[in-house]
Amino acid sequence: MITLTTDFGNADWFVGTMKGVILSINPRVQIVDITHNIAPGAIRAGAFALAAACRYFPAQTIHLAIVDPGVGSQRQILVVRTAKHLFVGPDNGVLSFAIATERVKAIHHVTNQRLFLRPISQTFHGRDIFAPVAARLSKGFPSRKVGPEAGEIVRLDWPKPKIRGTTSAGEIIHIDRFGNAITNIDDSVWSRFEAARCEVSVKSRLHCRVCANYQAVPVGKPVAVPGSSGLLEIAVNCGSAAETYRLRPGDPVVLREKGSQSSPSSL
Amino acid sequence: MITLTTDFGNADWFVGTMKGVILSINPRVQIVDITHNIAPGAIRAGAFALAAACRYFPAQTIHLAIVDPGVGSQRQILVVRTAKHLFVGPDNGVLSFAIATERVKAIHHVTNQRLFLRPISQTFHGRDIFAPVAARLSKGFPSRKVGPEAGEIVRLDWPKPKIRGTTSAGEIIHIDRFGNAITNIDDSVWSRFEAARCEVSVKSRLHCRVCANYQAVPVGKPVAVPGSSGLLEIAVNCGSAAETYRLRPGDPVVLREKGSQSSPSSL
Amino acid sequence: MITLTTDFGNADWFVGTMKGVILSINPRVQIVDITHNIAPGAIRAGAFALAAACRYFPAQTIHLAIVDPGVGSQRQILVVRTAKHLFVGPDNGVLSFAIATERVKAIHHVTNQRLFLRPISQTFHGRDIFAPVAARLSKGFPSRKVGPEAGEIVRLDWPKPKIRGTTSAGEIIHIDRFGNAITNIDDSVWSRFEAARCEVSVKSRLHCRVCANYQAVPVGKPVAVPGSSGLLEIAVNCGSAAETYRLRPGDPVVLREKGSQSSPSSL
Repeated sequence: MITLTTDFGNADWFVGTMKGVILSINPRVQIVDITHNIAPGAIRAGAFALAAACRYFPAQTIHLAIVDPGVGSQRQILVVRTAKHLFVGPDNGVLSFAIATERVKAIHHVTNQRLFLRPISQTFHGRDIFAPVAARLSKGFPSRKVGPEAGEIVRLDWPKPKIRGTTSAGEIIHIDRFGNAITNIDDSVWSRFEAARCEVSVKSRLHCRVCANYQAVPVGKPVAVPGSSGLLEIAVNCGSAAETYRLRPGDPVVLREKGSQSSPSSL
Repeated sequence: MITLTTDFGNADWFVGTMKGVILSINPRVQIVDITHNIAPGAIRAGAFALAAACRYFPAQTIHLAIVDPGVGSQRQILVVRTAKHLFVGPDNGVLSFAIATERVKAIHHVTNQRLFLRPISQTFHGRDIFAPVAARLSKGFPSRKVGPEAGEIVRLDWPKPKIRGTTSAGEIIHIDRFGNAITNIDDSVWSRFEAARCEVSVKSRLHCRVCANYQAVPVGKPVAVPGSSGLLEIAVNCGSAAETYRLRPGDPVVLREKGSQSSPSSL
Repeated sequence: MITLTTDFGNADWFVGTMKGVILSINPRVQIVDITHNIAPGAIRAGAFALAAACRYFPAQTIHLAIVDPGVGSQRQILVVRTAKHLFVGPDNGVLSFAIATERVKAIHHVTNQRLFLRPISQTFHGRDIFAPVAARLSKGFPSRKVGPEAGEIVRLDWPKPKIRGTTSAGEIIHIDRFGNAITNIDDSVWSRFEAARCEVSVKSRLHCRVCANYQAVPVGKPVAVPGSSGLLEIAVNCGSAAETYRLRPGDPVVLREKGSQSSPSSL
């Protein structure tokens, strides 16, 4: 099985062409789209989508991620073998978050030109390099033979929330289709606080409680809930938090535990 | 075979993740997207899309429909077995129109937690409940074992057009990609009228004839045609009726048979 | 294998329904989307997408292309057998560019009504005619039996760039997701010029050099590069040329070889 995570969009013929190349080499492989709507060149967003989805696929899945503003330049292409999966993508950090949570066994640069389509364009390595390499890996071609072992690779930093006393300062990292704002405040952070006494704020624009689900507040009201990737997300019940409160990736988010109920005056 | 009809969109990793879960459980199942672009929370629109598409799939297809603004709340999840298909979705009416035209054999609440992924998030039951339940049904798990039989379930009313004499009053229920406005005036209604003498109006903005196809009128002109789901639709030949005449779901539509040709003065 | 290239979009149930019809007839066929986001009725854009993608699919692939503003009229439907593939589409030119580069063996009109779904709507031949015909072809139904051989068919003209001395005048034919402007100036044209001395202009708005890849210019600067379909394209490194310079399909593009370096005064 091969998954695809790209910024190619669904309007052009790019994704279909890659599938044609893959299926020409391995007609039996199953291809699953994770998404092709990563914003053009948004490496970090692609890294996040891949990391959120990849672990729900069967062992030995080949995850191909192409957000590659450096296509045609000297940037390297990587094949990363982990205990569970294979990852293929440009060496620009797009694989970072996915492989950070897996046990990495080997990382190779892709240099074996016998695996590529000819001629190689300078603008569409998805078709000419990534697709045929992934297809051949899916047929059992050993990852160690795609090229030499890689030394240093590009790794993106995950923005870690800061904790000071009863406050954690994080940020919005993704707005999803429903207008929910996914933050970088994960369960290792918010599990230290007493949820029932917590308030979440975005600038001075939005203040809400932390609850178990969207319906804990009336329709149209904001709420913070533990999301499906273990990250705190800000939502509006039956509405769009991003639209209502003009939220954007990068906006600062503060989680604050209010004073204990025995000393309300400290609030 | 499993079909998917959701409001998850194509930009996030939600649909891809669900497919990963399904294929981890049943690697051989074929997954077909009906659409993922139902407007967020638009249960009625999801119900309509599912009903329009479902009967064109092979017998024993499992149709999974997720438009679920109540995710994480106490709303029930249903498996509906009909003579031809299985349907899985939240008990909020999203299955209504599809099962209204099929012979229902049994309806069960999904409560068997052994079928679910662990841990269960409160925001993404598509991944944690719906996908694994559908996958297990596709492997032959009997629908009667997902949980107890359901009593009353939520059913949406289909908006029926009203008929008075030579007039039928309906409404627009969907605007499609081409800007065609699909109405709730079905063939059982318009077959009572003599098409050649009918006029269709939307408020005072649009007046057009009923014809067999789009090309019966000049390019750029409006026309009402019997559509592919048995519903009268309003189109502009080689144009967008919705854009030209600012049509929206819910707009009132009147079908009127004009006086017989022998008495034109009655018009 | 069947590929789909349509203007049906991803928001309605149209594509899913066609897949249901195809898989009801041939459950084993693999269906690959090239794109469904051709602008409504944009025959030329559909023809271009199909031509760019089709040759990357395995031999014997059935390419179904539906951009069909004449649906329900008397326009013909074609099955084109080439040395490598089968093509199915309306006789309005949408197959033109794809079959122009293949060896055509036979062209038939589709008239054999036993292949169609019943009843046939006047608005959705994708479901009622194209899908079942493609599905039956994928099961080995001989293309010569779909109907009589076709005589003249509709062919679109490919806009050829003009060459006068050291200048070639072409146009923009497609804007892709990245805002790159693909021109009709192909390698047979620009290979006559000395790339290092060439300048590309769009009206008086944009002037740039021809380079091997996007990164040959600083981030944010424009550049013309030989694209993946053999056509010169205008890009902005890590940006959108179309947005930055308000480029549109049809805009005139001039490729000009500047005077030799020994006579700079001739510029």
